[in-house]
Amino acid sequence: MSDVKKVVLAYSGGLDTSVIVKWLQETYNCEVVTFTADLGQGEEVEPARAKAQALGVKEIYVEDLREIFVRDYVFPMFRANAIYEGEYLLGTSIARPLIARRLVEIANETGADAISHGATGKGNDQVRFELGAYALKPGIQVIAPWREWDLNSREKLMEYCEEHGIEVDYAKNKKKSPYSMDANLLHISYEGGVLEDPWTECEEEMWRWSVSPEQAPNEATYIDLTYVKGDISAIDGKEMAAHEVLEYLNKVGGANGIGRLDIVENRYVGMKSRGCYETPGGTIMMRAHRAIESITLDREAAHLKDEMMPKYAELVYNGYWWSPERRMLQAAIDESQKVVNGVVRLKLYKGNVIVVGRQSEDSLFDASIATFEDDAGAYDQKDAAGFIKLNSLRLRIAASKGRGIE
Amino acid sequence: MSDVKKVVLAYSGGLDTSVIVKWLQETYNCEVVTFTADLGQGEEVEPARAKAQALGVKEIYVEDLREIFVRDYVFPMFRANAIYEGEYLLGTSIARPLIARRLVEIANETGADAISHGATGKGNDQVRFELGAYALKPGIQVIAPWREWDLNSREKLMEYCEEHGIEVDYAKNKKKSPYSMDANLLHISYEGGVLEDPWTECEEEMWRWSVSPEQAPNEATYIDLTYVKGDISAIDGKEMAAHEVLEYLNKVGGANGIGRLDIVENRYVGMKSRGCYETPGGTIMMRAHRAIESITLDREAAHLKDEMMPKYAELVYNGYWWSPERRMLQAAIDESQKVVNGVVRLKLYKGNVIVVGRQSEDSLFDASIATFEDDAGAYDQKDAAGFIKLNSLRLRIAASKGRGIE
Amino acid sequence: MSDVKKVVLAYSGGLDTSVIVKWLQETYNCEVVTFTADLGQGEEVEPARAKAQALGVKEIYVEDLREIFVRDYVFPMFRANAIYEGEYLLGTSIARPLIARRLVEIANETGADAISHGATGKGNDQVRFELGAYALKPGIQVIAPWREWDLNSREKLMEYCEEHGIEVDYAKNKKKSPYSMDANLLHISYEGGVLEDPWTECEEEMWRWSVSPEQAPNEATYIDLTYVKGDISAIDGKEMAAHEVLEYLNKVGGANGIGRLDIVENRYVGMKSRGCYETPGGTIMMRAHRAIESITLDREAAHLKDEMMPKYAELVYNGYWWSPERRMLQAAIDESQKVVNGVVRLKLYKGNVIVVGRQSEDSLFDASIATFEDDAGAYDQKDAAGFIKLNSLRLRIAASKGRGIE
Amino acid sequence: MSDVKKVVLAYSGGLDTSVIVKWLQETYNCEVVTFTADLGQGEEVEPARAKAQALGVKEIYVEDLREIFVRDYVFPMFRANAIYEGEYLLGTSIARPLIARRLVEIANETGADAISHGATGKGNDQVRFELGAYALKPGIQVIAPWREWDLNSREKLMEYCEEHGIEVDYAKNKKKSPYSMDANLLHISYEGGVLEDPWTECEEEMWRWSVSPEQAPNEATYIDLTYVKGDISAIDGKEMAAHEVLEYLNKVGGANGIGRLDIVENRYVGMKSRGCYETPGGTIMMRAHRAIESITLDREAAHLKDEMMPKYAELVYNGYWWSPERRMLQAAIDESQKVVNGVVRLKLYKGNVIVVGRQSEDSLFDASIATFEDDAGAYDQKDAAGFIKLNSLRLRIAASKGRGIE
Repeated sequence: MSDVKKVVLAYSGGLDTSVIVKWLQETYNCEVVTFTADLGQGEEVEPARAKAQALGVKEIYVEDLREIFVRDYVFPMFRANAIYEGEYLLGTSIARPLIARRLVEIANETGADAISHGATGKGNDQVRFELGAYALKPGIQVIAPWREWDLNSREKLMEYCEEHGIEVDYAKNKKKSPYSMDANLLHISYEGGVLEDPWTECEEEMWRWSVSPEQAPNEATYIDLTYVKGDISAIDGKEMAAHEVLEYLNKVGGANGIGRLDIVENRYVGMKSRGCYETPGGTIMMRAHRAIESITLDREAAHLKDEMMPKYAELVYNGYWWSPERRMLQAAIDESQKVVNGVVRLKLYKGNVIVVGRQSEDSLFDASIATFEDDAGAYDQKDAAGFIKLNSLRLRIAASKGRGIE
Repeated sequence: MSDVKKVVLAYSGGLDTSVIVKWLQETYNCEVVTFTADLGQGEEVEPARAKAQALGVKEIYVEDLREIFVRDYVFPMFRANAIYEGEYLLGTSIARPLIARRLVEIANETGADAISHGATGKGNDQVRFELGAYALKPGIQVIAPWREWDLNSREKLMEYCEEHGIEVDYAKNKKKSPYSMDANLLHISYEGGVLEDPWTECEEEMWRWSVSPEQAPNEATYIDLTYVKGDISAIDGKEMAAHEVLEYLNKVGGANGIGRLDIVENRYVGMKSRGCYETPGGTIMMRAHRAIESITLDREAAHLKDEMMPKYAELVYNGYWWSPERRMLQAAIDESQKVVNGVVRLKLYKGNVIVVGRQSEDSLFDASIATFEDDAGAYDQKDAAGFIKLNSLRLRIAASKGRGIE
Repeated sequence: MSDVKKVVLAYSGGLDTSVIVKWLQETYNCEVVTFTADLGQGEEVEPARAKAQALGVKEIYVEDLREIFVRDYVFPMFRANAIYEGEYLLGTSIARPLIARRLVEIANETGADAISHGATGKGNDQVRFELGAYALKPGIQVIAPWREWDLNSREKLMEYCEEHGIEVDYAKNKKKSPYSMDANLLHISYEGGVLEDPWTECEEEMWRWSVSPEQAPNEATYIDLTYVKGDISAIDGKEMAAHEVLEYLNKVGGANGIGRLDIVENRYVGMKSRGCYETPGGTIMMRAHRAIESITLDREAAHLKDEMMPKYAELVYNGYWWSPERRMLQAAIDESQKVVNGVVRLKLYKGNVIVVGRQSEDSLFDASIATFEDDAGAYDQKDAAGFIKLNSLRLRIAASKGRGIE
Repeated sequence: MSDVKKVVLAYSGGLDTSVIVKWLQETYNCEVVTFTADLGQGEEVEPARAKAQALGVKEIYVEDLREIFVRDYVFPMFRANAIYEGEYLLGTSIARPLIARRLVEIANETGADAISHGATGKGNDQVRFELGAYALKPGIQVIAPWREWDLNSREKLMEYCEEHGIEVDYAKNKKKSPYSMDANLLHISYEGGVLEDPWTECEEEMWRWSVSPEQAPNEATYIDLTYVKGDISAIDGKEMAAHEVLEYLNKVGGANGIGRLDIVENRYVGMKSRGCYETPGGTIMMRAHRAIESITLDREAAHLKDEMMPKYAELVYNGYWWSPERRMLQAAIDESQKVVNGVVRLKLYKGNVIVVGRQSEDSLFDASIATFEDDAGAYDQKDAAGFIKLNSLRLRIAASKGRGIE
């Protein structure tokens, strides 16, 4: 066991990380600094301060990071249209690099030589936290209690609390959810419990942020989203900060039954896992961003983005936000977004996000060229013959050598 | 003008291609062979025989290609999860290579030296027909009347009919749609008319194959799709031929308001164009195929497919079905599909396709490993520490050389 | 024939473009502006001034663009390690976008409404000139005489000269080379003549910039190249401007028999073509750049560059320098080059470029980690077990489902 | 320590693996099966039998795998033109999956429950052996002594020999090389020693398979290589088995100073490492394969291969030969090689591999089209105008919206 003097812990205020505070103090005989962030998970963060104090913590960080989170992490990722494995909008993944960064910065400020987190040894989050921390501060030590201790059941945790006088009233009052959950402004996720059988439909009562399409209003909701350089800057003409945009879209999306997802995904550590996600605002943003790009982006710029996207999404999912290759891709993507300005109009109805209009001063859509009606000479149809002749030349030569119909 | 003796025309039986028959006979003083295919467009094809006869055509081909179309073109494409520009399921694109092939084969059978089609000089279809034809028979001549003649308005066409005694009753009886449409078993498309302003929402009466989500039933429909090697072989346990699968899914999808799409896309010939599409069955198949792959495909095989997909979709869209590069990608994709077997359960509700279950004897999902509960030693959490340490090594070294926090 | 008032011609001063001056004046009854650039082709450009005057040209541009060419075009391309089809260093391709840009700028300055060039209708250069011009000034007209006129043989050209009093003494004095050639600071190319049979070895007398390996010195030459952000800034410790670097390397490379290439390549217009190239400096730079990257670039940044490279090279070859997709790739590449600083030592010997040393303050090579000797704990070999266990997990699960040995 | 009954060891007959035999017997109290393969490393393998017997081994496998190695591993890889990080021909990497496969098959035959190898915990080879073994037999145990024991210096190893009566005469007679080496028919590699400083030029006496370019003959050697489906089937008209091809090319290449390489590469386990390689035959094959492809492969098939290549090379380097993603890429590559038939003529001279001719009945090179002379109508230059006009349309539209000259 390495010699640790002070450790910064990503502290939620919940039972597990409270146990970790005590366990770190005991096991490493070190000082614990707690860091609790409001990323829009929908729970008060201030109560974590008192809890940390009760556990004997002296240096306590409680921070509202919502704007930084959405502006510097979520929005850049949405410029890339990032989707993991065709479905997942990376809600958990994108929060981890920010937390890793703050853990390291706080370690620098407080003179800590280690960080710690409450992620298990089977999941992606341990990787994301630790790759981030190592990429930013290579000598940092990382303590992952779930990989070290033997408190690997609820009973043992409760026993530990009792033995160490950790208050568990909050745990008693609330019935423990059968799911492992994670939430931030972009999404809430559910794993475990009955979800471990991918043939079992998930229960309606599991979902927390959205009504079901069945329960959504019978009237559609229309909204206009204004884009500046690929980011949403206003809704229905009202300017908003990045995190306000997402909060608003979560509300209106959730009310219309939008953004539920139930998938089996491939974890970076090598196994498949069932996950359910509610991403109302993100689901709306994904659709809208593609729509504004559809009229403003050059074709080949758009296709290049589509070719880059799977790798970008994989990097975010796997925890490589702070890697040079993610920065390279981001540079390419951001270069493309200068012209992604304009307005998208959406219709939201019972789980559907329907694009009904897009307009932009940077639009490359030119009805006078595209029209099947008379175009007044904007396009010479005879050019198409030469275009086809030369594009087919290699195929014609090959066919003339016997590579035609097999 | 080249010397053409006999030309095979892709003949729909409609006004435009009827005019083309006559125009070819007159302009090239050549014999015309007509080819009319049932691709599931939802209109009778037999009437085309009498119309061709009335135009003096002696060699008339009328063929039901629905099974070949779905089995050999649509299904292989869906194995690739092909989506063009994030949205379009390539309904029109995928029919063209089959038509090009039959045109060339019929030219071989009838000793024709040319083929012809009714696609305009501004669109993608001319490219798809002609690249296909040249790739299969390099010396073939292609006549594209819309690029040659001056009948470029409805009035001129009607005048031409009158002058040449072409029956237009079918044109009189039906009010001409304001849209340019194309249909086959995979979809129906709409372009032109009011769609030429991308800010204008399309009208409800435009859509033909689906009800709106609003008008769809208030009760969800559940279906089970059985996959064998990446293709659907049965629905609700009932074995079906490929085209029956798609017909069935079109019906149940359309009835549940599924598969409408309204986009601005980039044509291969260089301009942006607004298109609306109804693809009820295809929309269901896309979702379901990803779901069955999610439990049966290896992670990296799946990611490689995702990286290949944009290029594959672009090749199909641009008309390169018969190219060696499309065949290379198909070989890779088909190699991956041997294990894509099992059943997907879907819930269809007012425009939503919701995956509620997937199971397979080839499933790689292993709850005993993924579980956050005790896994009886199936996975050693300590392995994760080494995994992270070595994956981060390059980042730690870089950070130690000053490339950490900027 | 379109109505052209003034046309800017890319004018070499040679026979062909002199004929074009006259032909443009006659055919379009327009004013001709000539533009002659020194790109390091190794011929005087000033004589072009008098020749243009003799042809009645009033606005004459003669410019030394060598530094701009190497600094803003060649160097950025070498940051990408761009090689077309595994062999070709893109010597001709990279000069075209600069010429296109100057043609357009001069058109803007002189109020010209068209540009013209002497490239044939079969080659890549027409595409590169014209895509560049259209991308920079969309309304510009382009006149490509070789696609329009009927002077398609040497005899007809000479006849035209005689009829129009164009001096051909320079043509008389020099025996016409049997090759079609193009030169600039990066390379000289040869096409046509006996090269049209790819089984025929090219003749020693064809080559102009290099001795053969056989004739190169028996003593090796050593040089040190200093890199700053991916570009060479000094040779053997002596700071040089970009074009001086390339001039120096051409000299030392050519003297050591370096940089000859004989390939069959695929032109963008669809046919294969045999080309021979001498690229002494470029061949050295390619090898050296990879060597400095090998110690300074992160592994995944390097691999991402390798994956992007074929597309980048294709874009340059095909003439898409001024496209948004090339700019996106460049942004990603340039992002990676910040750390590509240091010195590479090379041994040049009879056609061989041998890397014998590389060093850098930004080096990520760390002998204390890589060593097979005792590393004092810098690397824990036990981490490798966990690394392998988790990287193989997906394969182990698959094998346990019967996907192991086939 | 796990309970192992019988272990199959990759046994070279050298000092290190002899120690491992004894160490396994002692440490695990298990039976050891030795497996020694002739992969063309240039040393007798039969002596390994007696040495194993002397160590008390009862089940001894000594096999000549040269033909299988070249035909089923080296040749398929060369079809892909695989080069790792722009330089390395993957000589060590490609032998490992075959050894892994035989270890597993022998384990199955002998009822062994474990395999073992002599690779260190810092290198790539441990990963390649173990990923291969796990992919083929998921429950196999792997013992990697170098990651477990404390015999981590030459002295301790010698001491162990003495204590355990292991004959070290072969070690006494030969002076121990200062390099860590690995050899098979494709290459010999050198690491460690003075190479650990990347600024130090390697010594002439290090190289074993090739003369230096300086010492190579002053006369060039010409050879003709015949290709069938992308593999070499004959040299100078003489049919040869796969391993004979490589043996022959190693000899002629080495005699002409061909195939030396000195690089810094990125290991999969995360650090940079200096490696020197001699790959005479492989260097010749790489050049020749590209040459035969240059006349037989379609352009886009070739470019697709170039885009796939870096990933393919990375997979081989990292040890994923037996993965589904490598098989997918191989399927695509092999699909392209059906037409890669013909003859390449090479000139070998003092380190240079110079392509001087290529011919094929499947050649797509058509001088009658490519010629700058009169082509008798094979290519209509006017088609180029339309080709350029439509390819530039998207750029012209963008420029007309202000995205031209910045």
